[in-house]
Amino acid sequence: MKNKVIAISREFGSGGRTVGKLTAEKLGIPCYDQEIIQKIAEESGLCEDFIAEHGEYASHGNWFANAFANRDYYGHSVQDDIWSVQRKIITGLAEKGPCVIVGRCADYLLQETADCITVFIHADKKSRAERIVKQYGESEQAPERRLRDKDKRRAAYYQFYTDRKWGDVNNYDIALSTSSLGIEKCAEIIADLYKSK
Amino acid sequence: MKNKVIAISREFGSGGRTVGKLTAEKLGIPCYDQEIIQKIAEESGLCEDFIAEHGEYASHGNWFANAFANRDYYGHSVQDDIWSVQRKIITGLAEKGPCVIVGRCADYLLQETADCITVFIHADKKSRAERIVKQYGESEQAPERRLRDKDKRRAAYYQFYTDRKWGDVNNYDIALSTSSLGIEKCAEIIADLYKSK
Repeated sequence: MKNKVIAISREFGSGGRTVGKLTAEKLGIPCYDQEIIQKIAEESGLCEDFIAEHGEYASHGNWFANAFANRDYYGHSVQDDIWSVQRKIITGLAEKGPCVIVGRCADYLLQETADCITVFIHADKKSRAERIVKQYGESEQAPERRLRDKDKRRAAYYQFYTDRKWGDVNNYDIALSTSSLGIEKCAEIIADLYKSK
Repeated sequence: MKNKVIAISREFGSGGRTVGKLTAEKLGIPCYDQEIIQKIAEESGLCEDFIAEHGEYASHGNWFANAFANRDYYGHSVQDDIWSVQRKIITGLAEKGPCVIVGRCADYLLQETADCITVFIHADKKSRAERIVKQYGESEQAPERRLRDKDKRRAAYYQFYTDRKWGDVNNYDIALSTSSLGIEKCAEIIADLYKSK
């Protein structure tokens, strides 16, 4: 029998990671987020910062140009290597037992492997901007610019590897706004869905 | 104090209307759908079929061309008249008391008037196709074609009058898939949200 897994995609700064942790706590199951990066680092020998940057985001600049740059004779890139290891690790985690997985295209990767609840977490721009400044501090770039950049690169990465549109409502069983409903309520709804599945 | 109103947008054939009725039953509040068409008919003198067709869907054919056709000297169309009456009626219903309103851009219209929970109901193509054949019978057009046509015209109508993208996850507090979660569960989640708001 397949394990029940909650796969959470999220807009940058929406609090999706916190929703994931809280949902997992309520259900007494593990939540994998940073742990996946550590596992990829162990397996690939690449450093964690590099993986965090290239395991979920398209490169800076022109993604379409970059997608075909930095590739070897066989059209293969380091990003493709990370994708392969990431897929193996995420599939392995879902096979091990019920869990919550945040980001990294898990909603797409686990279609066959797990009995998956797919979730998209979003929030309005204002509360996302406030959250990233609170969480990651100020930077030279305006928060709105940082949000746009991250979302764009995350969407491009998702589209490239899954051939689906990131954030398209039809890819998810449920989509929730943390700025409207609150993080606690979102976690409560997802945990309840998991229990009744 | 503003009334609590649930505004449900839905893909054609997703069962959004049934979700609305069921949610309203659970909460003991009215659900307005067909009633809005009747009220517009009373107020405008237009027949109900015409209103059902032009109060939520862009015209057949080239919407962009049609949007500027059939307009009087002042750039005004019958569709604009329906839009005005519809807006007045929907705002009036929300001011009268708590309720569920299905479709007709209520999520957009009630931003200021009501304490609104905005919901988007969708489902996968297969179950939507089955539902429309069951509900409306066979037609000359294949069900997939009928879905595409209705969605496209609904999206164009919404975009024209609200300047927002129909089905964009960021416009809704919650989006639910009836094909994944079931109609009963969707109604339960929405009713619970309403109670805890």
